[in-house]
Amino acid sequence: MPASPIRKLVPYAEAAKKKGVKVYHLNIGQPDIETPQACLDAVRNHQMRVLEYSHSAGNESYRKKLVEYYAKNNIQVGANDIIITTGGSEAILFGFMACLDAGDEVIIPEPFYANYNGFAIQADVTVVPIRSNIESGFALPPIEDFEKAITPKTKAIVVCNPNNPTGYLYSASEMETLKEIVLKHDLFLFADEAYREFCYDGNHTSAMHLKGAEQHVVLMDTISKRYSACGGRIGAFVTHNREVLNAAMKFAQARLSPPYYAQILGEAAVDLPDNYFDSTRNEYKLRRDTLVNRLNQMPGVFCPNPGGAFYAMAKLPIDDCDHFCQWLLESFSHNGATVMLAPATGFYSSPGLGKQEVRLAYVLNADAINQAMDCLETALQQYPGRTN
Amino acid sequence: MPASPIRKLVPYAEAAKKKGVKVYHLNIGQPDIETPQACLDAVRNHQMRVLEYSHSAGNESYRKKLVEYYAKNNIQVGANDIIITTGGSEAILFGFMACLDAGDEVIIPEPFYANYNGFAIQADVTVVPIRSNIESGFALPPIEDFEKAITPKTKAIVVCNPNNPTGYLYSASEMETLKEIVLKHDLFLFADEAYREFCYDGNHTSAMHLKGAEQHVVLMDTISKRYSACGGRIGAFVTHNREVLNAAMKFAQARLSPPYYAQILGEAAVDLPDNYFDSTRNEYKLRRDTLVNRLNQMPGVFCPNPGGAFYAMAKLPIDDCDHFCQWLLESFSHNGATVMLAPATGFYSSPGLGKQEVRLAYVLNADAINQAMDCLETALQQYPGRTN
Repeated sequence: MPASPIRKLVPYAEAAKKKGVKVYHLNIGQPDIETPQACLDAVRNHQMRVLEYSHSAGNESYRKKLVEYYAKNNIQVGANDIIITTGGSEAILFGFMACLDAGDEVIIPEPFYANYNGFAIQADVTVVPIRSNIESGFALPPIEDFEKAITPKTKAIVVCNPNNPTGYLYSASEMETLKEIVLKHDLFLFADEAYREFCYDGNHTSAMHLKGAEQHVVLMDTISKRYSACGGRIGAFVTHNREVLNAAMKFAQARLSPPYYAQILGEAAVDLPDNYFDSTRNEYKLRRDTLVNRLNQMPGVFCPNPGGAFYAMAKLPIDDCDHFCQWLLESFSHNGATVMLAPATGFYSSPGLGKQEVRLAYVLNADAINQAMDCLETALQQYPGRTN
Repeated sequence: MPASPIRKLVPYAEAAKKKGVKVYHLNIGQPDIETPQACLDAVRNHQMRVLEYSHSAGNESYRKKLVEYYAKNNIQVGANDIIITTGGSEAILFGFMACLDAGDEVIIPEPFYANYNGFAIQADVTVVPIRSNIESGFALPPIEDFEKAITPKTKAIVVCNPNNPTGYLYSASEMETLKEIVLKHDLFLFADEAYREFCYDGNHTSAMHLKGAEQHVVLMDTISKRYSACGGRIGAFVTHNREVLNAAMKFAQARLSPPYYAQILGEAAVDLPDNYFDSTRNEYKLRRDTLVNRLNQMPGVFCPNPGGAFYAMAKLPIDDCDHFCQWLLESFSHNGATVMLAPATGFYSSPGLGKQEVRLAYVLNADAINQAMDCLETALQQYPGRTN
């Protein structure tokens, strides 16, 4: 089991803070956006007397409410197509465990969300990466690359849209391409759509919109980013495939139930006004523009403009992003501050890739991002491992 | 992956309720005891603005508070010996994943908590059962039985104390026996002590009290039953073994964090008055006495007196407990009511065992237990598969 590439730097950040250095956290997808008051109030005002187990599939009232939420997104599902999970993490794990046998292969365009690897290892499944490139902004690799990677053991493709870590927003035509591949080779399409609402240049195409692929698609969802409710640990496993849902239910039953409190929060969230996401989206767009502009103004830095989520990948003039990110915390400060980034190597499973790249989560406000970019700009001038 | 033997009858219970039949739920460990007001209030009054991820090991403030809780139970641990988990379920899963390799064996006295099997399957570990008997009240099997079961692949023994499903309370000398076995064969001792406070006839000996076994013991704990907070999904993985803790941390990091809300609840629970458990314990003891007396008065029924937890196992004059429990829901009612029990076959991993036994959770008040026992007594007279 690998250590989390994002969390392994935490002790260095803690040490920096103990020295009195302010750390700008662009390393993790923990938004500073406030959780909607109506959601927090729903939990505060709930009149429970016993904090009971919920149904293993989650509270029925919440699942029914989610049906409304999905309908607003042109996704037609019933309450019985949904299992409430403990975070999006568990939805991914259930997908791997319910759909794949030990030794099966799952194709994932890299760079990809590092924890897919951890869940694959838990499920004894092999991740087969297909490379996407920073030069193309991390667009879907050509279909030939998928065809080359498919073996008799291939059972699924994972698509994270908009993407973590790249911020790439897959187009409708790219999603159609994925549909054709999964239909042709009878694969599952695991769709991680945690950032569905955060699209800045174009509309979101859900895997659940792909007509004819209903029995192949498993949606892995979460309220964490959508409502700034990461600590609630509530996600959803959604599919029209009854056999897959029944298999996932066995894992859901083994862990008894998802957490109760944040189901109350998630249920209230569906009743937020329809324009709720507008201000959040505008705020993230401002941050993205600030971040990407600053990065591309730095000599030797390249950052493609991400169309969604709240991540950007940047190529830096450095020898090794793991060294650099640790050095930022251990050996550098600028006006009493430094910046914490996620080394991109943790998002590639092919050894040696991503050594000059970092992921930046624009989860701080524009002022803080500017401060953090001041740190990064200065750091790149001082870093002993700078390349040309 | 097996379906949960406790939860698989749920659709029959739902159908009975739709017909207007009242169902007394003695089938699942969901107490009706109210969650302490101070715990619920701690959540209600928490002034969070962002529901953030907690640390992957859980909030430090909560872990420090748990150190106080354990000290009150003569268990000396530090905050860094603790990982907060998503329920006791995840603590068990982490233990299997962190300590055992695929194909390793874990010895568990049967009958045992059915979900151990599910977690073992997820971890690709083989459960080797050793039989305990209803005639002895499910005491620890003789040491020779353990010695016979140990192979080079054996890596751990699981002990649930007080026991679910049997209610058996292991004595200090039985715990010493387990210590000797794990030291002699260099095994882990996984200790599930979810019901630590619920002992009615004697004191609790924690596996963490076993001197000299500190590097072997992993405590798997939960607030679910202790504070009637099952829906919170908060447990703990506790060990002095640094290597094991570090391995478990990788799994903790992959799922990011445990749920935030119920950590607030758990932290407040440690400050409950020291006599908090007295009334709960007295209440459960009253229920146990009511249940066990009623059962043993029924012709052909035998129920050993359980020393702890809130479960009892009873031997009934029936052909097949799975048929019987389903029949109770599908085809029987008495004064408009029936009772839902857990078939014991789900708690045995040796095929064919437990066919005449059921588990009863005394999670309802004495009045309701009496009503439920009226149902059971009548049912045993009417059941077509009654044996002599």
